[in-house]
Formats: sequence, structure tokens, C-alpha cells
Amino acid sequence: MKSALIVVDMLNEYDHEDADVLVENVRAVLPSMRDLVQRAEREGMPVVYVNDNYGDWSAGRPEIVERAIAGKAADLVEPIAPGDGTWFITKARHSIFYETQLEYLLREQGIERVVLVGQVTEQCILYSALDAYVRHFALAVPRDAVAGIHEDLVDAALRMMERNMRADVCHARDCALS
Amino acid sequence: MKSALIVVDMLNEYDHEDADVLVENVRAVLPSMRDLVQRAEREGMPVVYVNDNYGDWSAGRPEIVERAIAGKAADLVEPIAPGDGTWFITKARHSIFYETQLEYLLREQGIERVVLVGQVTEQCILYSALDAYVRHFALAVPRDAVAGIHEDLVDAALRMMERNMRADVCHARDCALS
Amino acid sequence: MKSALIVVDMLNEYDHEDADVLVENVRAVLPSMRDLVQRAEREGMPVVYVNDNYGDWSAGRPEIVERAIAGKAADLVEPIAPGDGTWFITKARHSIFYETQLEYLLREQGIERVVLVGQVTEQCILYSALDAYVRHFALAVPRDAVAGIHEDLVDAALRMMERNMRADVCHARDCALS
Amino acid sequence: MKSALIVVDMLNEYDHEDADVLVENVRAVLPSMRDLVQRAEREGMPVVYVNDNYGDWSAGRPEIVERAIAGKAADLVEPIAPGDGTWFITKARHSIFYETQLEYLLREQGIERVVLVGQVTEQCILYSALDAYVRHFALAVPRDAVAGIHEDLVDAALRMMERNMRADVCHARDCALS
Repeated sequence: MKSALIVVDMLNEYDHEDADVLVENVRAVLPSMRDLVQRAEREGMPVVYVNDNYGDWSAGRPEIVERAIAGKAADLVEPIAPGDGTWFITKARHSIFYETQLEYLLREQGIERVVLVGQVTEQCILYSALDAYVRHFALAVPRDAVAGIHEDLVDAALRMMERNMRADVCHARDCALS
Repeated sequence: MKSALIVVDMLNEYDHEDADVLVENVRAVLPSMRDLVQRAEREGMPVVYVNDNYGDWSAGRPEIVERAIAGKAADLVEPIAPGDGTWFITKARHSIFYETQLEYLLREQGIERVVLVGQVTEQCILYSALDAYVRHFALAVPRDAVAGIHEDLVDAALRMMERNMRADVCHARDCALS
Repeated sequence: MKSALIVVDMLNEYDHEDADVLVENVRAVLPSMRDLVQRAEREGMPVVYVNDNYGDWSAGRPEIVERAIAGKAADLVEPIAPGDGTWFITKARHSIFYETQLEYLLREQGIERVVLVGQVTEQCILYSALDAYVRHFALAVPRDAVAGIHEDLVDAALRMMERNMRADVCHARDCALS
Repeated sequence: MKSALIVVDMLNEYDHEDADVLVENVRAVLPSMRDLVQRAEREGMPVVYVNDNYGDWSAGRPEIVERAIAGKAADLVEPIAPGDGTWFITKARHSIFYETQLEYLLREQGIERVVLVGQVTEQCILYSALDAYVRHFALAVPRDAVAGIHEDLVDAALRMMERNMRADVCHARDCALS
């Protein structure tokens, strides 16, 4: 089953409410996430960044990267910032599938399984997992490569994904990529 | 703000895994749910039933009602079974919005707020709440008119709706309809 | 390649503007259309009726059939009216794919090619053909099993389907079903 | 009624089949199109470029503009090339609405009417017009600011838009913008 690694909302200025907690949690999972991206690239697995455009309809990859680096936590952005040639899709709402090109991209590439990393576990990750499941994509979520805000909701979100969306809630190190 | 009451997946044969727990929980909330439907009808508020077709693409309201009544818990179906003239939409997956006519119906009717009742709180109700929120519908979920399976996930789902989807998690008795 | 026969908007009261011309054209193609439906059923090819609900969100197959038969051209409805057990999807707008369950049904059934019959050639048939093409379904349109209103637009619509949507614009008799 | 000007597929390398005819037709309408874009900008009317990404999922505005200018008809690209800060959406298929962010953008901005310019009249313009109409957007298509390939299909497409999609098929000079 062909898989893709999806990096969700890691281009963030971290200036919103709840950003302090989130920053700490992102810092903790960033190394695992980065390892996964590097493993995927080494193994020739497709990697897709899907990121909010924060309401700026003129912003694409370069602008969104630049603003995130100019934000409050460049150290959380630079190690994972996508370079030229990276597959990149903008979104305006929480789910990576809602009114975006993602489903078309995945089907056109013959991808049947997605590995989700990024933030926020109990929001965009949960919602994107659901939308992947509803569309019959197989699903893996490495618990140490997603970052949340409220610990109890993170825990519930991961259990929902595992129990109700048939997600493989794994550890990054053991997560099958290709 | 014009509102609609949405009754989710209450036509159920209750013969699946987890049905025993679910049946007890549905029994507990059925009176509140029925009151809401009756209040809505009295007040002229639109009511829409959205229900899984359980994979039978020839089934509409009559067939789905009939089979549910012939199932394991007719007493949970009959009091809430939709009659002729009820707005009715079938769905094939969990969310009431995924590949259905519902969003079009709501927009065409000028509806900007949905009140969700039915089952399963931490699955179809949560997912439908999310899809309503992503589409900018205001949202109310009466906690005593939705039924779940796993108590801890029900609790987390209601907190997610309240905190992250701006849902009014209310009691049926106090839930504003029109 | 697994195919489905789609019967579009043949349940019609024929009381709208342009109905007189349409009625004549439907009468001319009805026998070919009926033959295709019978051949499909004989050969075990999936048949799906997709029909406008004419704005009545409580109407399913039985109501839509009944009203069409009570309309101005029962003789155009009865020979093609779908019975119990027919796969049936309602639509509210012109394309059979717009906010309906059809794409999900087709993919779930492993269907990769659609044969479109029904009305109106230069409207719902053209729009549905386009939406099938955009979604990468292969496409056949038997020119003697679709009915239009304006002859020149019918002709242009068929050429658009053939040239720009890679449709097999065939004759009903020669149209490959399975 | 708030309107937006949509510029469709004007970033083109013109190296495909039929490009020769298309190039001549684009050259003829480019001045009108450019005038409309300038009028829109002067009058504060939103302008959105929607353009095929030609299958490169890493390409955004800068890459798509650059490649089009490096193509066979830079003189048809440079006068209309969108600069920094232009609202820009990529698409992978013909319609500007299919699996893109456009509908969300339009609704979020309160836009109820679209003016379509660009290419190809009897393909992407026609299909996009249809998808706008199905979604209840009012529609204007300046016939001298869209370019087609086959004259007879262009003519039929414009009549279809006017008759069946309630489009205002106007001249660029007289086209109401705001």
C-alpha cells in the first residue's frame, strides 16, 4: 500500500492563544517529526506539507515559511521548513481535506495510506484523521510526532483515532513508511 | 439566526458490536430527544433526519424505518420514526455532511445554526459537529439528547465540541430552537 | 473496466417551460433507453437512477415516481420508472455529482466507467458528463438514449463530450455495457 | 452584490496541441482582459487568479508564472502575470471549483457574483461557469475577454452560459464590475 507523509500546520507564528503550551509540546516532538521527514525523503516516500494560509489568499509556500520564521519560534520552524520542490497545499480551515486539492493529489498518486505528523493533535490532526478515514485512506499517527495543547484531549483524540478510525497510533521510530 | 434540528442515525437495527451499551444510553436520552423534535415541529423549526443507509443504495426513508423497527430495539425507533413529509437525507459514511445533500439543503433554506441530536456522541455526532463548524454553521448539542458508547470518549467529545468547535453544549430543556 | 448505467432525470412532470419540445424528443429515445436498462439488468450491470427532487426534501423514489406519473406525460415515465430495489439518488441541482452520494457509491462499487442516459442532453447530461470526466471516470453517451431541447446545443454538447471529455458518443445498440 | 474577477489559466506555456489557434485567440482578447484586471484593481474589486499547476504539486504562483514566461508565448503572459500579493489558487483539473479553495474564499469574502476571463472558453471557462451557476453565484462572461479554440464550440458555449446558466455574456467595456 503506497503511503504519504503529511506534515500538518508546522508553519506557525505561534502568537495565538495557547501558543505557550503548544510551543513546549512541539519542541518535544520536533526531533521525531524531523526524523520521519528525513526517513521519508531517503526512502522515496511522498511528503506533502498542508498548512493554513492564515487567511492570506496570496500566500504560498515562500510567504508562509518566511512569516513563520519571523514569528515567535523560528527554532520550531527552521528545522522542518519545506524547501523548493516540496509538495505543498494551503488550507483555510482545520481539516487538510476540506476544500483543498489533497484528496485529488493522493488519488492521482495512487496513495492509499497517510501518516500524519504536526499539530494540533486534538484539533487539526484529529479532524484530518477523520476525513482520511471517511475517505477510506489507511492511517498512521505517530504519537511522538504530533503535538497537542490539552493533555486529556490529546489522549482522548489518540484513542478515538485508534478505536474509531482504525488508525495505527505508533511511535515514530517504529512507524512503517513505505 | 435560523436553526434546524438534525436527527442523526436514530434508525438503527442495533445488531452491531457495542449495541448493548448503546441501547441503554439511547433509552436514557430518547425522551429528551423526542421532546426536542416535538418542540421543533410545534415552533415551525425545520427538522432534518440524516441516517446511514447501511450500504443499501435502494433504501430511502420507508425502507430504513421499516428495517430499524424490525431490528432489536423497536421501542427505540418507533417513538422517533419520521413520518411522510419529513425531510430525509441518507448518508453512507459517518459525517452527515460527507457527500450528502445536507449543506445544500441548509444553505438553500437560509439555515445558519444546527442543533444535533442522535447517536453516537463520540463518533457521528462529533464528526458532524466538526463538519458543521468547519462550514461556519453555529452549533448546539444537547448533552441529554445524544447517546454514546464509551463514557470517557463521550465526555472528551463534548469538551472538544464546546472548546474547539464553539458548540453550545446545553441541556435539551434549555436548548434554544428558533 | 466495471461500468454502471446512470438514468438521469427521467422522473419528470413535464410541466415546465420547454416541456413540449422535450416531450417529443424523450418519446423518440425512450425505446432505446429502455432497451439499455433491460440489457443492463440482464447482464448484471449496476443501474443507478439519479433524479432531481424538485425542491422537496422529503421526497424519495416512491414520491418522485408517483408525482411524475401523475404529471403531463405518464407514458414517458411508466416504461422507465424504477421499481423497489433500484439504486436511487436524489439531487437538487443539475449535475448528478454535485453534493450527492454518487461518487462515493461508484467508488465503493469499483465502478470506473459510466454510461449516461436521460435528459436534458445540453444541460444535466453535459454537466454530469463533465463532472464524471473531471473525476476520471470513463464515459459513454448513447446519442439515441439522451434527449435535449435545442438541436444546435444538443449537437454542440455531444461534440464537447466527444472531443473534450473523451466520451464514447455511441448508438445505444452498439454501446458496450459490461 | 459583491463581485470578484476570476482570471482562469492565463499562465500557460502554450506548448500543447491546439496551442497555435489558441495563441492567436488569446492575443486578440488580451487587451480587454488586461483592461478588466486594471479596472478591477482601480475599483477595489477582488481579483483571483486560478490556474492549473500542470501536475506539479510543488508549484505555486512564482513557479507557475516563471515557467509560463519561459514558454512559447511570453508576450501573452507578461502583461497579465500576477504580482506579489495577488490572490492565487492552483487547480489540477478543468473547473476552478473542483477540489480547490475557491468556493470557500468567495463565501468568506461575501462574494456573490463572479466575472470570468481567461481560457479556454468552451472548456475551463464553460465548466467553471457551470460550477459557479450550480453554486448559485451570479455570473458574467465578457465574450471579448475569453479565448477559445473551436469557433463553433465557443459560440455554443457562450449560448449555453447565457441561456442555461443565466450568465451575463457581455462586452468587457460594458461589464459591470462592482
